[in-house]
Order: sequence, then structure tokens, then C-alpha cells
Amino acid sequence: MSKLYVVGIGPGNPDSMTFRAKQAIDTAEVIAGYSTYIDLIRPLFPNKEYLVTAMRQETARCQMAIECAKTRPTAMVSSGDAGVYGMASLLFELAEGQVDIEVIPGVTAALSGAACLGAPLGHDFAVISLSDLLTPWETIEKRLRLAAQADFCIAIYNPASHKRADYLRRASGILLECASGDTICGVVRNIERDGEECHILTLKELADFPADMFTTVFIGNSKTRVIAGHMVTPRGYIHG
Amino acid sequence: MSKLYVVGIGPGNPDSMTFRAKQAIDTAEVIAGYSTYIDLIRPLFPNKEYLVTAMRQETARCQMAIECAKTRPTAMVSSGDAGVYGMASLLFELAEGQVDIEVIPGVTAALSGAACLGAPLGHDFAVISLSDLLTPWETIEKRLRLAAQADFCIAIYNPASHKRADYLRRASGILLECASGDTICGVVRNIERDGEECHILTLKELADFPADMFTTVFIGNSKTRVIAGHMVTPRGYIHG
Repeated sequence: MSKLYVVGIGPGNPDSMTFRAKQAIDTAEVIAGYSTYIDLIRPLFPNKEYLVTAMRQETARCQMAIECAKTRPTAMVSSGDAGVYGMASLLFELAEGQVDIEVIPGVTAALSGAACLGAPLGHDFAVISLSDLLTPWETIEKRLRLAAQADFCIAIYNPASHKRADYLRRASGILLECASGDTICGVVRNIERDGEECHILTLKELADFPADMFTTVFIGNSKTRVIAGHMVTPRGYIHG
Repeated sequence: MSKLYVVGIGPGNPDSMTFRAKQAIDTAEVIAGYSTYIDLIRPLFPNKEYLVTAMRQETARCQMAIECAKTRPTAMVSSGDAGVYGMASLLFELAEGQVDIEVIPGVTAALSGAACLGAPLGHDFAVISLSDLLTPWETIEKRLRLAAQADFCIAIYNPASHKRADYLRRASGILLECASGDTICGVVRNIERDGEECHILTLKELADFPADMFTTVFIGNSKTRVIAGHMVTPRGYIHG
């Protein structure tokens, strides 16, 4: 039995990959993944065989990778970390132990986006996806509400898409039931890619922000501040 | 004004550092950090000047790094990601714009520990530290309770220390108010270092687990399962 590496490549800039991720891709003969991620790494690994599938074909893509890994070392790549809204869990579910899966962690957007803004996740935080393709909206709403009650910092993935244009507005409304309108928020688009943008704004203003699929949103906790243009959530060393 | 790089080096194995982290340390003339992390990287960067401080001297360490960065490029290293219970937020607070701070994200223990176990954070999750050095225990308890009510997967940092030997037991008790005793949990110790250990157990059993400072704990959500010896939280692609 050969190996299936499930590799998180980080935000997209090849320098944000770990050495271990590069080694795993080097070891594999076949690289599988969604076309956008494959385009990011193909120039770095020109002599590989590629299995490329379009978006929304996750199950087929994982099944192909598992079949392939039965005979040849294979790497499935995801942007960010493959364990965070990536393919890792689906691969374990589909493989049911038929192939030896090794997950190589990567820098997920909560971390890379936070670094662009400053230190917004400096205390306890929650990570929530607004995509309701696989999760009932009621569950998402409940988690947003409880996260705000807990005064967690929050990183929001998938805040919008063409079909879900108003979801960030809906989420902001739920958070505002419990958190102040002046809560510091941050938005990062195209993290570490061409056209990277960072914005700091208030929760009240967030509802109107035109987020898209390439945006990650950060909600501060009640202590988050703006310091010299950065979004900073204190750990608690300094009081007063 | 020269630069202060705040660098997350990942779990400790040098291969788990990103290329960007290595480049930032290479660029710096002076490397600051807590002695344990410095010991991990000193062999890789032998020709640097080091500013090493002991644990619990966080404010002094950050002030030294900021002073130093006023005249020479300096890197402050943290294990994992410097923005997650690391030095990034304290540096922004103390520097108040006097030096140019660049945060280089790294693979935090929630991600590296998850990869050891399988895919425990495959859906929305919360990250909570049990350390009450800087956070009132009541706040920690409230966040644990609300995270369990939200059915978040949870990554717990700092589950125990010599002085806080029973904190994981206390946390488990709070989670059990809302979550089933059969909830799948995972524990990883010495992630990607010598003596790495992974265990999968139930929430009922977790209370008695002898966690220490080098342990990260994962609580599954209500759908988390064990598949071929791995802890897996489904994203939701497969129903039934």
C-alpha cells in the first residue's frame, strides 16, 4: 500500500508552504486537487502527473485520489490547512482505512489573514463557515450567536458567494444582538496573493462590506483595539 | 526604522516551518525568544545574536526585542503561530507603532495536533486556553460551556501545568453538562517532537487523562467518529 498525503499548502504564495508540505509533494508521483490550487503549485512541480477536478466535485476528486494512492504515492493538495474545511475528513470517510493517509498541516486563512491585520486572534477564538451548502443555516446562526455570547474572537470563512450575497449582513445582524456595534472587525481579501487587501472597520459597518469568496472576516472580542493601524486582541499582559 | 519580524515556527520540527519563516529569521540579525524555542532553532541559524529569556518574562522579552528592532532587523520567534497565545499582540501593544512589525504566520498546535489525530477540526471549531494566569477562570468556564452548547469542535491549549493539575478534569466536567460522555476526544503530546504520542478516548475518559504543558486536547462535535484509528469530524458531504 502506498501513501496518500493530504497537504495544506497555506494561503497560496509558495513561500508560505512548510518544508514538510513541499517534501510530501516531491515524494508523490500524482498530485490531485481543485483546479485553482493546482494552478498555484504546478509551476513548482512541473514533472508530476496531475488529477484536476472542478469545484463541487469533492467526492469524485477524493475517490480518484484514493484509487490512485492504492498503487502510487499521491498527494491531495488544499489551500490553507486540509483539515479546516478541506478534504482531510472526507478522505478519511471515503478511504475507511484502505490507504495510509498522512495529513500535512498548513497555515489556514484564520492564521494568515490574522497576520495581515495584526494580531486579531490573540485570545480564545472560534472559526465558523457561513456556507450552508453542507450545514443548515440554523446551525450556523446558533454558533454565531453563542460565539458572540462567549466573547470569542471569530474568524469567518466563506462569508459570501454569488448565491449567498447577503450572508455576511445576516451574520453581522446576529452578532449585533450580543456584541457592540463598535466591536473592531477586520477583513482580508486575496491573502498573500496578488491584490491582497486589508480593512479594519466596526461590526456596525461590516454588514455593508462587499465580501466575496476570497475574503476572510475577523470579529474582535470586547477588548480588541486598533493600535497603529493594526487589529490587536490583547492576551491580557497589560491591564489598565 | 528597521523591522521586527514576529515569526511562528510551527510545532518545533524545523521542517514544519514555512519558507517565509525561515527567510525572515535569515534576514534578522538578532533573534529573540523564550529559551525552549531558541534551543529548537539555534542549530539552524548558528551565526545570529540571540536574546534569550526565561518563561514568564514576556513583557521584558518583548520590550528588549522592540528596543533592538529600532536599530537592527530583529525576529521574535514563537512555537506554533505567534498570533495564537503568542507574543504578537503584546508586541503591538508595547510598540505602539514605534517599530515596523511584520507577523509571519505558522502552524499552530490546533492544526499540527489535528493532523496527528486525523481530521478532528473538520467543521466549525473553537480554540480555548485553560490557563488562568491572564484570564479569569469564570471566563474560561463560560466559553467552554457555550462552545459545547454550540456543538463546536474544540482545541484546548494549556490543559494543565504543575499548579493547574486538575484543570482538564474541571473543563471536562463543564463540557459534560451539555455534551455526551461518548463524545470522541483526542490528545496529542509533544507534537512533531521526540516522544510524540496520540490518544483517542471519550469525553468521559478525558477527565482522568494526565495532561501536561506539552499536551493539546481535542473535543469532537456530536458527529465526530473514529475511522480506522483516526479522529474524524465530517464536513457533511456524506449523509446516512
